[in-house]
Amino acid sequence: MNKSEKEIRPSFVSDYMEGAHPEVMRRLLETNLERGAAYGADQYSESARSRIRKACGAPDAQIYFLSGGTQTNAVMIDTLIAPYQGVIGAASAHINTHEAGAVEFCGHKVISVPAKDGKIAAQDVAGVMEEWLADESREHVVMPGMVYVSHPTELGTLYSLAELKALSGVCRRYGIKLYLDGARMAYALGCPQNDVSLADIADLCDAFYIGGAKCGALFGEAAVFPKGGIKSFTTILKQHGALFAKGKVIGTQFDALFTDGLYEKIGRKANDTAEKLKAVFADKGVELAAPSPTNQIFVLLTKEQLDRLAPEVGFSRWVPAQDGRWVVRFAVNWATSDEEIEKLAELL
Amino acid sequence: MNKSEKEIRPSFVSDYMEGAHPEVMRRLLETNLERGAAYGADQYSESARSRIRKACGAPDAQIYFLSGGTQTNAVMIDTLIAPYQGVIGAASAHINTHEAGAVEFCGHKVISVPAKDGKIAAQDVAGVMEEWLADESREHVVMPGMVYVSHPTELGTLYSLAELKALSGVCRRYGIKLYLDGARMAYALGCPQNDVSLADIADLCDAFYIGGAKCGALFGEAAVFPKGGIKSFTTILKQHGALFAKGKVIGTQFDALFTDGLYEKIGRKANDTAEKLKAVFADKGVELAAPSPTNQIFVLLTKEQLDRLAPEVGFSRWVPAQDGRWVVRFAVNWATSDEEIEKLAELL
Amino acid sequence: MNKSEKEIRPSFVSDYMEGAHPEVMRRLLETNLERGAAYGADQYSESARSRIRKACGAPDAQIYFLSGGTQTNAVMIDTLIAPYQGVIGAASAHINTHEAGAVEFCGHKVISVPAKDGKIAAQDVAGVMEEWLADESREHVVMPGMVYVSHPTELGTLYSLAELKALSGVCRRYGIKLYLDGARMAYALGCPQNDVSLADIADLCDAFYIGGAKCGALFGEAAVFPKGGIKSFTTILKQHGALFAKGKVIGTQFDALFTDGLYEKIGRKANDTAEKLKAVFADKGVELAAPSPTNQIFVLLTKEQLDRLAPEVGFSRWVPAQDGRWVVRFAVNWATSDEEIEKLAELL
Amino acid sequence: MNKSEKEIRPSFVSDYMEGAHPEVMRRLLETNLERGAAYGADQYSESARSRIRKACGAPDAQIYFLSGGTQTNAVMIDTLIAPYQGVIGAASAHINTHEAGAVEFCGHKVISVPAKDGKIAAQDVAGVMEEWLADESREHVVMPGMVYVSHPTELGTLYSLAELKALSGVCRRYGIKLYLDGARMAYALGCPQNDVSLADIADLCDAFYIGGAKCGALFGEAAVFPKGGIKSFTTILKQHGALFAKGKVIGTQFDALFTDGLYEKIGRKANDTAEKLKAVFADKGVELAAPSPTNQIFVLLTKEQLDRLAPEVGFSRWVPAQDGRWVVRFAVNWATSDEEIEKLAELL
Repeated sequence: MNKSEKEIRPSFVSDYMEGAHPEVMRRLLETNLERGAAYGADQYSESARSRIRKACGAPDAQIYFLSGGTQTNAVMIDTLIAPYQGVIGAASAHINTHEAGAVEFCGHKVISVPAKDGKIAAQDVAGVMEEWLADESREHVVMPGMVYVSHPTELGTLYSLAELKALSGVCRRYGIKLYLDGARMAYALGCPQNDVSLADIADLCDAFYIGGAKCGALFGEAAVFPKGGIKSFTTILKQHGALFAKGKVIGTQFDALFTDGLYEKIGRKANDTAEKLKAVFADKGVELAAPSPTNQIFVLLTKEQLDRLAPEVGFSRWVPAQDGRWVVRFAVNWATSDEEIEKLAELL
Repeated sequence: MNKSEKEIRPSFVSDYMEGAHPEVMRRLLETNLERGAAYGADQYSESARSRIRKACGAPDAQIYFLSGGTQTNAVMIDTLIAPYQGVIGAASAHINTHEAGAVEFCGHKVISVPAKDGKIAAQDVAGVMEEWLADESREHVVMPGMVYVSHPTELGTLYSLAELKALSGVCRRYGIKLYLDGARMAYALGCPQNDVSLADIADLCDAFYIGGAKCGALFGEAAVFPKGGIKSFTTILKQHGALFAKGKVIGTQFDALFTDGLYEKIGRKANDTAEKLKAVFADKGVELAAPSPTNQIFVLLTKEQLDRLAPEVGFSRWVPAQDGRWVVRFAVNWATSDEEIEKLAELL
Repeated sequence: MNKSEKEIRPSFVSDYMEGAHPEVMRRLLETNLERGAAYGADQYSESARSRIRKACGAPDAQIYFLSGGTQTNAVMIDTLIAPYQGVIGAASAHINTHEAGAVEFCGHKVISVPAKDGKIAAQDVAGVMEEWLADESREHVVMPGMVYVSHPTELGTLYSLAELKALSGVCRRYGIKLYLDGARMAYALGCPQNDVSLADIADLCDAFYIGGAKCGALFGEAAVFPKGGIKSFTTILKQHGALFAKGKVIGTQFDALFTDGLYEKIGRKANDTAEKLKAVFADKGVELAAPSPTNQIFVLLTKEQLDRLAPEVGFSRWVPAQDGRWVVRFAVNWATSDEEIEKLAELL
Repeated sequence: MNKSEKEIRPSFVSDYMEGAHPEVMRRLLETNLERGAAYGADQYSESARSRIRKACGAPDAQIYFLSGGTQTNAVMIDTLIAPYQGVIGAASAHINTHEAGAVEFCGHKVISVPAKDGKIAAQDVAGVMEEWLADESREHVVMPGMVYVSHPTELGTLYSLAELKALSGVCRRYGIKLYLDGARMAYALGCPQNDVSLADIADLCDAFYIGGAKCGALFGEAAVFPKGGIKSFTTILKQHGALFAKGKVIGTQFDALFTDGLYEKIGRKANDTAEKLKAVFADKGVELAAPSPTNQIFVLLTKEQLDRLAPEVGFSRWVPAQDGRWVVRFAVNWATSDEEIEKLAELL
């Protein structure tokens, strides 16, 4: 597909259809012939780790580079909770819906709670814990060992710092872990409405990951244990088939992404494009299905609109709405062009 | 605890507090010194299998004797579905609530659906299947491979034959398995309202188990694959730590339970006692929480009633009700005495 | 099979063909109608635990009653080592040969070392650890986390106290666990050559189990963590399908076995019978394949002897020997009669 | 590290220290901004699959692109054998030594057999199968379900076509699968001594993978089921955390590698370099530890040689040899320069 074709057919199917942001690609090419020790012990991975530790204000952080998001979620959850514990997540959480049971494959139950706009509330977590503690048969019930959140969420929404602090407080009160899936972290960091910094996340969570694949990298995710103290994680990764041999290839990318604020810039650019998209929808009277301030826009389309757009524009049908319409996702990223937005506006 | 103490303190905590029904015990004693081949290849296990096959009208049934219900559920589910499939069950299903994640330990997700009086409806199963089929990303979603039901249910209720036929029909339409947990099967078979026979279950389900421990046996469950065709199940049992060495000990018990209708009689006796218990509750104005026709009676008690009864009577707090009362379970079995019912009546 | 038939056809197939020792059966019958709290919280389980703690000189021991040996091995190993660790055992160890991969089912590798007469030596364990530590790629190699031994071993042999102390010392030096499978512990305790007491085992091992099923119980095993400190083990048992509902039924049996030295007496009686059996073999010029001082006698039989005996006597073919003969096991227990030994003598 | 530094310090540590072969990198850059459907449904993955199918003479082959070798082994083995089966491999096999128990993590035992020069013989496989079939207790023993081989092996050696046919024949005779780990397949295909083509492998094996990471790709492996017929593999990949989101990134690389014989050329170039290396060793009287005709050369070095070389040259200590020397691996690839070989010759 060449550029002119792309102008003809706008695509908002997902935010990971291209390769890498050009600057990331440039760095990969530049360092291609340099040798690096395997399994993340190379010079570029070390540099990337230093940059991320600094960005997180977490000098003791253990950081590992993995090749996929579901893999990262499964291995980190399996590492942080006891083999007999479960993980609390929104009913709409990625681990509960679109990871094909990867958490259960590692032996853990996903304990789902209702979510509002993709977010779970501290009081809902407290409710699960109190119910478990009050159960006379609780030794027969999966013990909750962790809370899973994503930021941005599956619906593109953001936790406020106050909300995340409340969740973290509840977790600490009940002695359970807090884990944050940052597959699309760049779009949070590059969002004006966001008041949660990487340092806040490193302070409030026991572990999280900074997403690369959906945020400008060719591929790769950075798993962070902000307080360190995790034993034998390289072995755990290998055992899960998640130890990436040529660590340098991912390390180089994160080194680039965390140089001169590139990661945040990539998010900001996409969010700006998303705002244009929202303006188009508002202009055309298309209702938003969720109040997303980031790069994924969820709207309600009628069957007629769906049928009319489908041959001309790429997007993702999410779920049927109650009223016969569909919740449809439009995702943008650093490579989405204004021409695509304009073309969509014409088609609506 | 001797008989006079038991008369003083009635206990309805569960239906598995005693050892075995005297007739089962008699048979164990009688055959105690006889030798039998290990792992279920003995003469009594073979006799029990013949009786069960006959009772089920299933001459090709493969039958195995296991030592616990959770174990039986986990190993049979893990055997019948593909490693990447999940099992649909009521939100209140035993596998979803009180088996400590044993199904997830085997790698499978429990896909919960709302239940009414502990039962799931064929249309809800169809709904799950249609939603999965309609999902463009369904390759990323756990594929449902089975429906789990219990009969009686966790709330003591019974599926009608029509309901079970509808469930079986839906399962066959979508190519998924139907599994029935019969931990308390005796109380279904010995219940006048029940119109589902063992032969119906063998016809409509892909697998089920006939409970011993809660129905008069010292312990033990009979796992039934009514159509046969299961390969290497002895190895699977061993791998799951579920192959019972002295198979004769369980086989002898089921041989006794399926002689002269003892199994059904044990259920009928307990159900009759439960009816007396319901009469006491009705007389005292205590409201039923579920329409159970079997040996577990769920009632709504106020906090004051709970506090008053707790020192004198054994029972199980189930869940808090919406109105401040508690759902409380009273379970009876073959060993519950009329004196206990009378004493409870006095105390209420 | 009645007594007269048994006199006609001696059977040495295994030590778990009968039900329970009569005294164990008597106690089960006596307490049959008494009620007990479920899941091991009953009065008899508590009494049995007290007796075992005393026999082990381990006042803080956590003790649980399980229904099978493979189950016990798998769940205890899975509890004591980290999810990414493996367990070192003899190539001939039960967990490595005849448990159908139950340890691997829980995710752990069995790291086998050669054994002499069924026993592994401290120096072989040290060798495994040194090799692992010396490996530059050891993060990619399964980390040994435990040593598994059985006492008596698969070949009926016994560790000396010096050997067990050496193994324990090596384990402590390398920071790994020592676990002892005591499926046939009674035959060790009741053996004059044995110099290892339960108190020694409790002192030297991190965990072990005292076998019931092969030592006079109807069924059941007692899992012991001699120093306590194991969290959530009831939940772990449930998750593995290994939590026995009517704990009282196993507790009562161990209460009986640990009253008035019954457990040891059962072992001694069988060992005495085994000595008679060895005398018969010596008299007939049948060579021993292993120097077992306990209830399992391994001999070398020619094909001709095998064919002659097979229709008349029960035994187990173990493995083919190098010279065309077979290693054959003859097992005796408390129920083996002198008449059976005499009949075998006649047949040889 | 720049080129002049590389000339100063030769490195033979592994064959995956650089990024990608320049031609692969060129294609990644060229297609970087093109959009492709996710999860391997893109145009380049489809093109790569066509080329691989053609190279394998396997028009029905199902082909998937994964991000790592251990991951590929674990997921394919777990897919092809039943949950209760094990996999036969050489004691020195990668899955048995350096994958941190990834196969056991999926629940399967690795059944090891002795190897000669890294290869297992058909008769050894037949021996395992006959022993299992002859065991009266085989239902308690892990059932072998597959044979795992690698080509080239861990020691750089190659199976002859006759050897592979014999293995395949044994597998078919006993009804078990044959799987081939081709992490370094390029070095086999580009080796004059090799008489096994991709078409042979596709014909003789049930599954295999064509390695990218160690053979010129930036990363990535191509998993091949030559006869097709595998259901739900995308879901299985996702469940194992092994579904790569931006499939195009790996697909593009394999499309490049299978264009104009690049993959084989990369192997041939490295093998030629390895021959020069062997000539240097021969010239210096250094003994080969294994008869490798491919890109990994195993030699025996004395402690004195090791200490002298270590500060100047990169290599891998493999295992201690019996005589006090060490088996040491020198690996070369497309990027190894003649200057490095010359420098090593000077240092020896």
